[in-house]
Amino acid sequence: MDNQGKKYVNKQIVLAKRPKGAPKPSDFSVAQREVPELTEGQVLLKTLYFSLDPYMRGRMNEIKSYIAPFSLGEALTGHAICEVQASKNAELKSGDIVISLTGWQTYAVISPKVSKQMPLEPDTVTKIPTSDKPSLFLGALGMPGFTAYYGLNQIGEPKEGETVVVGAATGPVGSMVGQLAKQKGCTVVGIAGGPQKCKYAVEVFGFDACIDHKSKTFAKDLKKACPKGIDVYFENIAGSVFWAVFPLLNNFARVPVCGAISLYNDALTLAEPGFSPGKMLAKLRAIFHFLRIDKTPVLITSMIVKKLKLQGFIIGDHVEEYDNFLNEILPMVNSGQIKYKEDIVKGIEKAPSAFCGLLKGANFGKVVIEI
Amino acid sequence: MDNQGKKYVNKQIVLAKRPKGAPKPSDFSVAQREVPELTEGQVLLKTLYFSLDPYMRGRMNEIKSYIAPFSLGEALTGHAICEVQASKNAELKSGDIVISLTGWQTYAVISPKVSKQMPLEPDTVTKIPTSDKPSLFLGALGMPGFTAYYGLNQIGEPKEGETVVVGAATGPVGSMVGQLAKQKGCTVVGIAGGPQKCKYAVEVFGFDACIDHKSKTFAKDLKKACPKGIDVYFENIAGSVFWAVFPLLNNFARVPVCGAISLYNDALTLAEPGFSPGKMLAKLRAIFHFLRIDKTPVLITSMIVKKLKLQGFIIGDHVEEYDNFLNEILPMVNSGQIKYKEDIVKGIEKAPSAFCGLLKGANFGKVVIEI
Repeated sequence: MDNQGKKYVNKQIVLAKRPKGAPKPSDFSVAQREVPELTEGQVLLKTLYFSLDPYMRGRMNEIKSYIAPFSLGEALTGHAICEVQASKNAELKSGDIVISLTGWQTYAVISPKVSKQMPLEPDTVTKIPTSDKPSLFLGALGMPGFTAYYGLNQIGEPKEGETVVVGAATGPVGSMVGQLAKQKGCTVVGIAGGPQKCKYAVEVFGFDACIDHKSKTFAKDLKKACPKGIDVYFENIAGSVFWAVFPLLNNFARVPVCGAISLYNDALTLAEPGFSPGKMLAKLRAIFHFLRIDKTPVLITSMIVKKLKLQGFIIGDHVEEYDNFLNEILPMVNSGQIKYKEDIVKGIEKAPSAFCGLLKGANFGKVVIEI
Repeated sequence: MDNQGKKYVNKQIVLAKRPKGAPKPSDFSVAQREVPELTEGQVLLKTLYFSLDPYMRGRMNEIKSYIAPFSLGEALTGHAICEVQASKNAELKSGDIVISLTGWQTYAVISPKVSKQMPLEPDTVTKIPTSDKPSLFLGALGMPGFTAYYGLNQIGEPKEGETVVVGAATGPVGSMVGQLAKQKGCTVVGIAGGPQKCKYAVEVFGFDACIDHKSKTFAKDLKKACPKGIDVYFENIAGSVFWAVFPLLNNFARVPVCGAISLYNDALTLAEPGFSPGKMLAKLRAIFHFLRIDKTPVLITSMIVKKLKLQGFIIGDHVEEYDNFLNEILPMVNSGQIKYKEDIVKGIEKAPSAFCGLLKGANFGKVVIEI
């Protein structure tokens, strides 16, 4: 109930079972729960948008990682843009727009800790400026854009005249990496799935070239597009794309390792604990998938010969720089100097299928669920 | 001939054939060549010591790398300590002691470029202070010690209280890494082959522990010796040692990738160009060697989850810091604060078998050939 005693029903998407390999919509279900009455210090948040991000796949497995797994039967969590519907908290008032971690549900009651940083703890929220486009705080101005900014600048360290390559070029991370690298005077080559996305990366985001990883001539095309080799490869795909990039890396190349979407459905399966006939089958499948020539000796040897740096990072470790990011990037997004592409899906019920599609690259731009 | 017209015969070890897999003494041969007369600007160098280093294995293959392959039938090159025997060069006089790159031979005539940095170009030499122990400029005070110093400090960035692990703990790189890390207040765990080397690493070099990688319980022993995990792993072995270390790496661990001695005889074989029945057999052998589960997906995924940095380097790119290294480390070696272990082999004819042994870990300390 809000301050006026109005009752709200909270519709949630919950994890019904842990996906084996690629997730299916049937791994999710819809739950309806009554919103509890506000107590002192609490706020009622009404979700306007919530974010679907590839990293969420990892949280669907019951394994130890940098972030706890999702609980079965509970609403999936993640970044959301919410309007404060009712408040018994001095720091927030009705109508305030916040980024929260309340995720895949239409309402949430929390005892908020208000922060200037990107929220990462369950009850943390960040007020955002009222804007025509609050959904951007889930994409270009949110965690994905910030990830691109940090990884490119702090680990990639691109210099004028260098060649920067990034995958998922029309996604919220890839498109930001490409545009920031162009601003630094780099040659920027994107990688994306299909000619439509590639065209968009070049024409809208200003990439010098964008190569279709679904093409049979992908590795050859990539090589042709990088005649001076590759100095920075912003890794968010891994798998076969990594191995097409790898021989093109120049001496002293830097590889910020941000994600590995091509592995999310497989690698993690392998690491699942426990035993059951179903799990065993999934494990065997995963083992056969990896039963190929071990490339780590080639990787390690080449790292020495070419003096390569590979560095993984998780943006959650660097939230103290979110404010700097926003000060620098917000004006450029507002002025149109930095472009973005959103893939807005209307209706909370569509979140499961949209998420399954995201892991297959069926989306076109940053996937946001609009309530 | 020198200034007095005295004739010298230069005995050289030449590469007779390119080794397949592990090198054999029969891959080398001895050549005798008359030393030519000095012309203006030249010096005659008499070799006192020359260095055997694992990286030389790579140069025995005919493949493109960061350094050109050795030529068949020519003296193998590499760092040597020489005395100027005769000089027609204003910068050097008889009796000067220099580090050169003249390698596996008893004499050499060169037109020297005198540098303060570690010599890397064929005719470059560096004068060293007259010392009781000039051979140290091939080990603790030379390229290996400098490699340890640079890689540990610049890439490893060890902090007080952290755990640092290094392989080949009694070798010239590993022993320096361990001692420098101890000075920074780290817990230092070495890895070495056999109980004798492990004992030496602890008792002489002051490692907190040293684990025998030949033991069947190696991985378990290593885990036990690193109860707080590993923050810096200085990589010079690769292969199974790397995979024992890998699960113990802490969040934000740094891995300076300096060498991969366990791969030198194998990985490079695989990359050899051309076709012949013998080469084909070697390649098949190498392919079967690597036909095991590909661990790169695990590597990449863990790099993100644990935010790891892996960075390859070649000390030759950083020679401008050799002077700083020497200023800092020379006094500590002279005072006995930093210890070293040399494995001095007398007689140039023994260089081939000593080199073959080095790649198998048969040496104990820095291998130097004394003429």
